[in-house]
Amino acid sequence: MSAPQGSQGTVSIDIPDTPHAIDRSGLRPVGVPREVVVARSVAEVQETVRRAAETGTPVVTRGAGSGLAGGAVAGEGVIVLDLSGLDRILVIDPVDGTAHVEAGVITADLDRAAAAHGLFYAPDPGSVGISTIGGNIATNAGGLRGAKYGVTRDAVLSLDVVLADGSLVRLGRPTIKGVTGYDLAGLVVGSEGTLGIVVAATVRLLPVPAQVATASASFGTLEDAATAVAAIAVSGARPAVLEILDGATLEAIDAATGSALRSLGEALLIAQTDGFGAEQEIAVVAGALAATATTVEWTTDAAEAERLLSARREALPAIERIGRPLIEDIAVPRSRLAEAIRRIRRIADEHGVPIFVFGHAGDGNLHPIIVAETDADGEIPEIAHRAADDIFALALELGGTVTAEHGVGRLKQKWARRELGEVSVALHERIKAVLDPQGILNPGSAF
Amino acid sequence: MSAPQGSQGTVSIDIPDTPHAIDRSGLRPVGVPREVVVARSVAEVQETVRRAAETGTPVVTRGAGSGLAGGAVAGEGVIVLDLSGLDRILVIDPVDGTAHVEAGVITADLDRAAAAHGLFYAPDPGSVGISTIGGNIATNAGGLRGAKYGVTRDAVLSLDVVLADGSLVRLGRPTIKGVTGYDLAGLVVGSEGTLGIVVAATVRLLPVPAQVATASASFGTLEDAATAVAAIAVSGARPAVLEILDGATLEAIDAATGSALRSLGEALLIAQTDGFGAEQEIAVVAGALAATATTVEWTTDAAEAERLLSARREALPAIERIGRPLIEDIAVPRSRLAEAIRRIRRIADEHGVPIFVFGHAGDGNLHPIIVAETDADGEIPEIAHRAADDIFALALELGGTVTAEHGVGRLKQKWARRELGEVSVALHERIKAVLDPQGILNPGSAF
Repeated sequence: MSAPQGSQGTVSIDIPDTPHAIDRSGLRPVGVPREVVVARSVAEVQETVRRAAETGTPVVTRGAGSGLAGGAVAGEGVIVLDLSGLDRILVIDPVDGTAHVEAGVITADLDRAAAAHGLFYAPDPGSVGISTIGGNIATNAGGLRGAKYGVTRDAVLSLDVVLADGSLVRLGRPTIKGVTGYDLAGLVVGSEGTLGIVVAATVRLLPVPAQVATASASFGTLEDAATAVAAIAVSGARPAVLEILDGATLEAIDAATGSALRSLGEALLIAQTDGFGAEQEIAVVAGALAATATTVEWTTDAAEAERLLSARREALPAIERIGRPLIEDIAVPRSRLAEAIRRIRRIADEHGVPIFVFGHAGDGNLHPIIVAETDADGEIPEIAHRAADDIFALALELGGTVTAEHGVGRLKQKWARRELGEVSVALHERIKAVLDPQGILNPGSAF
Repeated sequence: MSAPQGSQGTVSIDIPDTPHAIDRSGLRPVGVPREVVVARSVAEVQETVRRAAETGTPVVTRGAGSGLAGGAVAGEGVIVLDLSGLDRILVIDPVDGTAHVEAGVITADLDRAAAAHGLFYAPDPGSVGISTIGGNIATNAGGLRGAKYGVTRDAVLSLDVVLADGSLVRLGRPTIKGVTGYDLAGLVVGSEGTLGIVVAATVRLLPVPAQVATASASFGTLEDAATAVAAIAVSGARPAVLEILDGATLEAIDAATGSALRSLGEALLIAQTDGFGAEQEIAVVAGALAATATTVEWTTDAAEAERLLSARREALPAIERIGRPLIEDIAVPRSRLAEAIRRIRRIADEHGVPIFVFGHAGDGNLHPIIVAETDADGEIPEIAHRAADDIFALALELGGTVTAEHGVGRLKQKWARRELGEVSVALHERIKAVLDPQGILNPGSAF
C-alpha cells in the first residue's frame, strides 16, 4: 500500500465537512475521505488511479461539485480526485466545428470561447456557470436548449478516459460521423464516474443562431398549458426552449420579486425559437399558445426577452428563500405532462409538504422542488423523501424516468433499479465489472 | 440439439446463392447457411435465439440485406434470422413526437407515416426506400440530412432487444430525455447484430420543416470547393444537406445524363437549408459559396430544387454504368476535405483504377467509389481492395475514420482494429463477451 504522494496537487484532509466530500445534493458523507488529489495533469490522474487500483481504494472523481444526486459525495477512506484544475481549452476549430477541452473547463467558459468564433456549445444546464464539462459528461447534463439541441451526449464526439487500471484510452472519434466499433464514448457519457475517468473531450460546436425570439403565455389551468404544449408539438415549430412553471412556483416568484404572475393564471409557459426564421417561428408558437392562453406576448428584442425569461431564472432562487429544497428531476412523455403536474399537486397535499413544479416542457422534463422544514439536524426531513418516492413512482407509472438530466448518484439507486428492471440491471453490473473489475470507481453511485 | 422448427416462418435452403445469405457489399459467403427463419413475431425471434444458444449455432440477423459492409453475409452452418416480416408501425404519437416501430419497417415507410402528422423521421440513408429501421439501427446509418439532424443514434430513444440467451429487454426509455443507468440502447445502435437483436424501437420524429431552400455551386478546383465548405462552417448557417461531388463523378454523370457539369469545374457543392428561415439561410450559404465558386444558383422552388439535387441522385447510378463499384465510406475532419480528395485522386493514379468521390461534405464524410474491371470470376479485383486499403490509411492519417455510416461488417475488421487501437479493442471484446458469451451473434462482423 503506497502512502499518499507528496506531489503539488495532493492535500491531506482530516475533517468530515470538507467541501471536497460533498456536492449540492444535500447528502452527507459517512466518514472521512482518506485523501484529496487536485490533479494538474492527466499523468497525475493515471498515477492516482494506479495507486488506487494497487490498494483497492475507491476513487470519487469530482469537477465543480455542483451535482444534485450525490454522485460526488465521498465517504470513509476514499480518494477524492478533483479534476477542476484540468481547465484548459486546448483547441477550438471553427471549420471542423469542434473543441478539444480538458474535463475541468467550466461549461460557460467553453461557450464564451466558442462565441469568439461565432459558435456556441449547446448543452446549457442550470449550473452552466459553475459546473464543468467533465461533470456534465458524467451526468449527461441537459438544460433549457435540450428541446432542440439535445443533451451533453449529443455534443460529445470523443473522450479521453483513464480506465480503472490507470491506462489512458481515446473513445469515439473527433469527426462528426463515425461508426467504427461500439459507441463506448456514449457508454461513458452519463456513467457518473463509474466506468472510467473522463480527462478530456472533443465536443461539437454549432453556429450561434442568427436571431432569437421569445414568447410568454399565462394559462388559467395546468390543463390549458399542457394543451398548448401539445399544440406546439404539432404546429410545425420546434422551439429551442419551452419551459413550464406551475402556480406554486409563480406564487414563490411573486413573493420574491413583487411580480403578479400568479394572478394571470395557474401556469406559465415560456418559449424561445432561434435561427434565421426565429420571428416567423415564434409567431407560429404564439398562435399555438393563444388557443388556450389567457395572455400571450412575444418579442425579438433582447432586453424584452430577458424580462420574459426572468420568471424562469427566478424560480429556484425564489423557492430557496422559502426553505431548503429537495430538487427532483423526472421526465414523462409530453402527452402526460398535465397529468404528471396535477398528480404531483396531489402528492404535495397528501404529505402536507409544499412542492413547486417547473421544468422543460418540450422534453417532458419536470423539476418538482420539495420544500419541507428541515429536521433537528438541519437535514432534509424524511417526509420530503417520502414525497419524492411517490413522485418517482408516478414517473414510472406514466411511462417516464426517475431522472431526466441530474443523474442517479447516491440518491436514486433504488428507483433506478426499479426503472431499469432485473435484466437490464444484470447487464449494467456485468458491464461495470468489465470496466472496473475491482469496483473502485465511484462505488455506490449510478445504479 | 433441437431440429429446425416447422413453424410457418421457417424455410430450409440448400443453395449457396440464396439472397438470404448476401447483402450489397459484394462479399460472397463461404459455405451454406443451415436454415433461414423469416420471423413473424418477437416470440419467434426469442425461440430461434434460444435454439441457437442451446446448440451454439451462429445467428446472422438481416433486414433488407441492403448493407454495404458484409454485416449480413451468412456462411456455413449459420441460422439466418430475417426480420423483414416484423414490419408494423405500432404507434405514432405526434404530441410525444415519437414512433414505436418493429425492426423490419422500411425507413421510408415510417417517414411517410410520420408525414401524415406533419412530422418526419430524420435519418435518410441512400437506401431509405429499401432498408429497414432495424438495419439502420444495426449500422447507425447516416444520410444526407446528417449535417443538421444527426444519424440514427440521435433518433433512437429505446430499443426492444432479444439478448443472446433469448431473453427480451427494453433498453433506453420512450421519453425524449433520461439518464437512468448506462446508455445501453446507444451501445446496441451500430453494433451490427453482435450484441443483441433489435426487434423494435421507439424513435423521435420532428416537425416537417416549414420551408426548404436549395443551392448548387460549381468550382474550378477541389480546393475552391473545400474553401467554400469552410466558409459555410463559419457563416452562421447550418445547412441540413451539404454534398460534394468531384470531377470524376461529374464526368460520369455527364456521360450518363447528357449534362455538362464537368465543364463548369472540378467540383460541385449542393446545399439545402430548411426551417422557417430557409430562404434567408440559403442566401447566407450562397454568399459563402460565391467567394470561390464559378457559378452559384439557389431556389425555394421544389421542382427547381429537384433539378439541382438530381446530380447527387444520379451519381451512384452513373458510376454503376461504368462498372461494378466498391463503395467506400470514410470521414475526415471538415478542415481536411480538400487534402483527402486530392490524395484519393493520387491513390487512383498510383493503382491505375478509377475512383469517383462524392459525399456529405458537411460531416466530412466521403464515399470514394472504386471501379476496377472485375476478375475472371466476376468479382471485385484485388487491386480495388488495395486502393481501398490506401484510402483507409489516409483517413486514419488525417484524423478520420474508416467508416462514417456504412459499418465495419466483414469487410473492414482489420482497419477497424487499427483505428480503435489495442486498449479499445480489448474493451470491445470484453463487452461483447458480456452480451454474447458464446459468440453466437453475427460472429465475424463489426470489429
